[in-house]
Amino acid sequence: LEDDNTGLVKEMLQQLQPCDIALLLESSRSRNRLVLWPLIEPELYSDVLEELSEDVRNGIINTMLPEKITDALEEMDTDDLVETLSTLPESVSQDLLATMDEQDRQRAELGLSYGEETAGFIMNTDTITLRPKINVDVILRYLRLKGEMPEHTDTLYVVDSEDKLMGGVAITKLITAAPDTPVESLIKDSISIPVDMEDGEVANLFERYNWLSAPVVDSNNHLVGRITIDDVVDIIREDAEHSMMSMAGLDDEEDTFAPVVKSTQRRTLWLGVNLFTALMAAAVSDMFEATLSELAVLAILNTIVPSMGGVAGNQTLTLVIRGMALGHVTARNARWLLSKELAIGFLNGIIWSVLIASVIALWKQDFMLGAVIAFAMMINMIAAGLAGASLPMIMRRLNIDPALAGSVILTTITDVVGIFAFLGTATWLLL
Amino acid sequence: LEDDNTGLVKEMLQQLQPCDIALLLESSRSRNRLVLWPLIEPELYSDVLEELSEDVRNGIINTMLPEKITDALEEMDTDDLVETLSTLPESVSQDLLATMDEQDRQRAELGLSYGEETAGFIMNTDTITLRPKINVDVILRYLRLKGEMPEHTDTLYVVDSEDKLMGGVAITKLITAAPDTPVESLIKDSISIPVDMEDGEVANLFERYNWLSAPVVDSNNHLVGRITIDDVVDIIREDAEHSMMSMAGLDDEEDTFAPVVKSTQRRTLWLGVNLFTALMAAAVSDMFEATLSELAVLAILNTIVPSMGGVAGNQTLTLVIRGMALGHVTARNARWLLSKELAIGFLNGIIWSVLIASVIALWKQDFMLGAVIAFAMMINMIAAGLAGASLPMIMRRLNIDPALAGSVILTTITDVVGIFAFLGTATWLLL
Repeated sequence: LEDDNTGLVKEMLQQLQPCDIALLLESSRSRNRLVLWPLIEPELYSDVLEELSEDVRNGIINTMLPEKITDALEEMDTDDLVETLSTLPESVSQDLLATMDEQDRQRAELGLSYGEETAGFIMNTDTITLRPKINVDVILRYLRLKGEMPEHTDTLYVVDSEDKLMGGVAITKLITAAPDTPVESLIKDSISIPVDMEDGEVANLFERYNWLSAPVVDSNNHLVGRITIDDVVDIIREDAEHSMMSMAGLDDEEDTFAPVVKSTQRRTLWLGVNLFTALMAAAVSDMFEATLSELAVLAILNTIVPSMGGVAGNQTLTLVIRGMALGHVTARNARWLLSKELAIGFLNGIIWSVLIASVIALWKQDFMLGAVIAFAMMINMIAAGLAGASLPMIMRRLNIDPALAGSVILTTITDVVGIFAFLGTATWLLL
Repeated sequence: LEDDNTGLVKEMLQQLQPCDIALLLESSRSRNRLVLWPLIEPELYSDVLEELSEDVRNGIINTMLPEKITDALEEMDTDDLVETLSTLPESVSQDLLATMDEQDRQRAELGLSYGEETAGFIMNTDTITLRPKINVDVILRYLRLKGEMPEHTDTLYVVDSEDKLMGGVAITKLITAAPDTPVESLIKDSISIPVDMEDGEVANLFERYNWLSAPVVDSNNHLVGRITIDDVVDIIREDAEHSMMSMAGLDDEEDTFAPVVKSTQRRTLWLGVNLFTALMAAAVSDMFEATLSELAVLAILNTIVPSMGGVAGNQTLTLVIRGMALGHVTARNARWLLSKELAIGFLNGIIWSVLIASVIALWKQDFMLGAVIAFAMMINMIAAGLAGASLPMIMRRLNIDPALAGSVILTTITDVVGIFAFLGTATWLLL
């Protein structure tokens, strides 16, 4: 498609919107991206770059001339500008900042100063502010004179003489109010967002209160910017992807179409961790080598108990991680939740112990063997419930992301406990 | 907290917004929810019910008097009304519909007729429509007279004499335009959403184009409603949860605070499926019983190869599922992706084969054993890449949700292939 007639491709690209071009680039393998990029109209560069994911964007920026990059950056909204700069290597972003004009550099540096994953990092600074005493008709005349409003403006902000936020006035209210109403009386007491609030919390607030936008204030209640729902949507999607990807041991910026060697590198860490835990489980089995060499049937059944514990534990783990992300699980109900998951582990233990004991007793014609595996299953199910519920809470207290490491640690626990319980009981009762 | 002084609790509840009350209910165990519910102001019932998840909401509705439910339902926006009714048992929702007044019943039945997970199901019908020739000042006067606009209105819709959608006009444009401008000339050619479009696709469009709202049209391009971003946010969150939960074998409506027996039931299916696949893996090992009884060391190492294959395969699986959800992976680049993942499997195979061979050769002082496990690892890594990339595509063609069953099928494949490769090669070379 993309190799022969560049003229045709260029024409096609001209008919696409920036976000569609971004989708096309994301869905292309990395080699083709570099062929496509120069065919895009330079005016669209900033809009397309905004929409790309980190990996893909940086790959393209690496191939651009510095002055082209600066041009594209200067056209971006503050939040996109800040995000793009923050993902570039320090030296590159410093060079770019130096070549930008004064005003753009200042807004970029301000945003960068708040640190990633805060409200200040994702906010825009293009707020329209009003004084409390002005009447609606004056404001409407002013807006008409201005001729344009920043994208996604649904609320104007009222500030007092010290620039402190008094509240927001919805545009729909301005339209429906009588012309001689002072804007003051239209204020809806909107909650404001502190500039250092974590972005996940910002997203939760937007979701809970169905906001379209919200004002951001500094520690003195001065209005410093606003956050709009479209940025929040990106955060929600990214958070969700982060959980899903990290539970599978992937970097969430991993690009489906990255070159083979790069992709392999990115997945190595997790495979390495898994090899280590698999060797640990093997070492536990190794302690029972004498038992295993006497009863080969144990070797055959050795994976069943750990595997069931792993699944049960991961169910609990996932549920608790989700509950914590939604704000449902807090320190206050943690103990109750733990006892609930223990009870489920106990109940699960009974159900699956009876079932597996029956299957094994029938298959291997050995009642004692069935009893041994049932006992081990019982122990491991309880351990799984306990570990699945407590691990995320412990990890959060230690400031470790439970989605990232929770599953490995849990599986290691259920493997070790499962093998110990099964082979230990077998050594004790069957030899 | 909630047991003794109901007066105090009632006072506290009065100071909370509906969404905060909903959060409180969601974070309470099910027994306490029924204690709290009667303490809430009846006027807030509809707003609180809207915010609750399916399981929690139905639990509460079950305890309410029918006329109270009807009152609450009639106050809801169309989309929430339709959603609530659709999750109730058929007989209950029919009874409720019968007691509702004519107008509310009609809007509910219309919404229900579109079927779940479509644009029609999640849309609201409270659009403001304009004729193309009217001037801006007339519209502004009309809106002021009306005095109020539906929640989250950012765009008014222009329809022709046959009620066909001509396009949308942003409120911000109305404010900034000259009073004598005909509304026609302010139309931004907005894309419209067909009423039967799948909601996931609607969410992707909103995300890609950064919309705040979009008009919904039937097959004749008649305007039938609008979808707003706050509903889309819910869909995005639900979709993400669905993937995360179903990969762990959980129902995505699973309620963290449900009673023990109910929770245990909900998790049983997955544990049952896992028991079956674990027994299958055991059956494969069983075929090599003679080998295992002769060399106990094989029993000890038997889990390493399947486990590494499972992790590598799940990485690929997750990445491809995400790529499909984002629209990056299509039939056109599927073959390329498959060959890429095969190449990664091959490269991973080499890396981990060499490593595991060295570890085992050192640990067990047996070079041949190292070679055997390396060969099995190689085979299984390639199988994992192949299965991880092709399974989601095959499942999508068969209309099965890959997030739900993909991981089990994949793990079964990597277990069986891994055990076969390891024990088979060992039987052949070591005995």
